[in-house]
Amino acid sequence: MEDIAQELLNGSRLALSRAITAIENEYDNATAIMKKLYPHTGHAYVLGITGPPGAGKSTLTDKLAKEYRKQGKTVGIVAIDPTSPFSGGAILGDRIRMNSLTLDEGVFIRSMGTRGSLGGLSHKTADAVKAMDAFGMDVIFVETVGVGQSEVDIVKAADTTMVVLIPGMGDDIQAIKAGILEIGDIFAINKADHDGADKLVTELNMMLDLDGVMKEWRPPIIKAVANQNIGVTELVETFKKHHDHIVSSGQLTQRRTERTKNEMLDLLSSNIGSYITRNIVDTGKIDKMVEDIKAHKIDPYTVVSEILQNMLK
Amino acid sequence: MEDIAQELLNGSRLALSRAITAIENEYDNATAIMKKLYPHTGHAYVLGITGPPGAGKSTLTDKLAKEYRKQGKTVGIVAIDPTSPFSGGAILGDRIRMNSLTLDEGVFIRSMGTRGSLGGLSHKTADAVKAMDAFGMDVIFVETVGVGQSEVDIVKAADTTMVVLIPGMGDDIQAIKAGILEIGDIFAINKADHDGADKLVTELNMMLDLDGVMKEWRPPIIKAVANQNIGVTELVETFKKHHDHIVSSGQLTQRRTERTKNEMLDLLSSNIGSYITRNIVDTGKIDKMVEDIKAHKIDPYTVVSEILQNMLK
Repeated sequence: MEDIAQELLNGSRLALSRAITAIENEYDNATAIMKKLYPHTGHAYVLGITGPPGAGKSTLTDKLAKEYRKQGKTVGIVAIDPTSPFSGGAILGDRIRMNSLTLDEGVFIRSMGTRGSLGGLSHKTADAVKAMDAFGMDVIFVETVGVGQSEVDIVKAADTTMVVLIPGMGDDIQAIKAGILEIGDIFAINKADHDGADKLVTELNMMLDLDGVMKEWRPPIIKAVANQNIGVTELVETFKKHHDHIVSSGQLTQRRTERTKNEMLDLLSSNIGSYITRNIVDTGKIDKMVEDIKAHKIDPYTVVSEILQNMLK
Repeated sequence: MEDIAQELLNGSRLALSRAITAIENEYDNATAIMKKLYPHTGHAYVLGITGPPGAGKSTLTDKLAKEYRKQGKTVGIVAIDPTSPFSGGAILGDRIRMNSLTLDEGVFIRSMGTRGSLGGLSHKTADAVKAMDAFGMDVIFVETVGVGQSEVDIVKAADTTMVVLIPGMGDDIQAIKAGILEIGDIFAINKADHDGADKLVTELNMMLDLDGVMKEWRPPIIKAVANQNIGVTELVETFKKHHDHIVSSGQLTQRRTERTKNEMLDLLSSNIGSYITRNIVDTGKIDKMVEDIKAHKIDPYTVVSEILQNMLK
C-alpha cells in the first residue's frame, strides 16, 4: 500500500498534491495522512492575506512569493475560493496562477473551493497549510477573497494577517474597515497610484489610532502597486518586523495555542457534521422529520432536542 | 411571568424586538419563544438580497420596502452585518437605516451581527425571519453584505434571491459571478447610470445563457439606480413574477422543504456547538488537550476521535 504521508515527507510534490486532494474531498485516508504529518509541522511562517474582491490580492501574493524566493525561502500558497459553493469552485485560483511561479520547484500553489459537506473549509485550509508545512515550505500564504465570517475563520490560521484595500471602494468600506481593523496586523493599500489612496491612508490611520491606543503593535499601512512591484520589498520587511514582534512578545506562542484550540474545535464540528450526514441525512431519517414539521405536527426545536437526546451520552 | 411570544402575536413591536434580541444573544427563553411562534409562521414572502460590498444593497432594499408599503404590504428587514465578528457588529445597519422608514409602523428593521458562539448566524437569521413572519409581516427582506459561504447559507432562507451587482468591479467579479449565478433568481444591476453597465449586462446574459439551458426560470436582469428610484417598480413586478412561477411550478413547496431541512440541520449544529462550549471549552478541558497537542504528546485527530467516543452514544 502506498504511503502518501511518507512520500510527502520525502519531498514528493505529487504526494503533497494528493494529500491536499484527500483533505479537500474528505477521503478516508485523510486523517491517517494528517496524523503522520502532524509531528512535522510548526516550522512554517503562515501569512494570511484577505480583503474585499477586486483588491488585487492574488497579484500581490504572487509578487510577495517571488520576493521570498529571491531570499531563498520556499513558498506555499493556499488560495481559498469561496465563490462557488455549489459546483465545487477553485477555478479562479488555477486560472490566475498560470504564470512563472508555477514553474518554480520552490513554490507550491493550491486553490481550494468549498465543496464537501457541512462546513469544514477552515479546518481543511488548516490541514492544507499543515501539509505544506510538513513538506518543508518556509513561508505559507493563505489567501481568501472576501471579508465575511468564513474568511475571518480562515485567516485565524495565520501568524500574521495582512489586509489588502484599494482606493475608491463603495459605501460598505466603512463597515469593512470596522471588521478588518481587528484582524489586520498589516494593511496594504494596493493600487496606490489610483485617486483616493492618500485619503484612504488618512482614514485608516484615524481608525487605527482610535482603535489602537493600548495595543503593543500598531498595524503599519504600506502603499503598494502590485503589478509594478512597488511596495513589495517593504511589505516583506514589515512581515519580518511583525514576526520578530510576535516572537519576542510571546504572542506567537499565544496565537498558536489559540489556533490549536480553534483547529481542534473546527475538526470536532466537522466530524460531528459528517456523523450527522451519515446518521440522519443519508439514512433519510431527516425527511420524515421535515414532513412532520411542515405539517405542523411538531416544531423543529422539539425535533432537534429529541435528536440530541438520542445522539449524545 | 411575561410572555414575549404572546405579546408579539398580539402585535407588540417591543416584544418583536425583544424576541429577536433573545434569538441573537441565545438567551435561555429563545427556544420557548420560537416554539410558540412556529405555528404562526409560513405566511410571509421572504426575499434574499445579496451582492458584493459597495453595490448599494441597503439603499435598494429601502426603496423596495417603500414600494411594497405603497401597495399596502407590511415589511420586515433583517440586515446581516457580518463585518464585525469580534466586537459584536451591527453598527452599520442601524446607522444607515436612520431614515423615513424607521418612522413607519408598517416596517420593522433589525440588524444582526455575528456575535455569539460557534456559528449560528444562519439559524439566528432564520429565527428572526420567523419572528417577523409570526408578527404578520407580508414581505421580509434578508440582506447580507458579501458573497461568501456564510452569506450563501443565509440567503438559502429566502423564497426569491436577488443578487445586486454594479458596473466597474475589479478582477474578482468573474469569480463572484460564477458563484452567484447559482443563487440569483433575479439580478439587479444597480448604479446602472455608471460606465460599464451595458457591458456587465451583456456578460451576465452570456453567463446565464450558458448556465440556464435546461432551467424553467431564466433569471431576468433589471437595471436600476436605487437612489433615483429607477428600476424599483420593475423589480417589485419581477419579484411577483418569480413568486407566481415558484408557486405554480411547485418550486415554492420544494424550496420550503429544503429550507426546513437546512434550518433543522443548522439548529442541530448550533445546539451541538453550545454543548461543546459548555462541556469542553467552559470547563477548561480543552486547555489540557491543547497543551498535550502542542507538546506533541498526541495529535489533534486522535484527541477529537476520543472526544467523539465519549460524547456520542
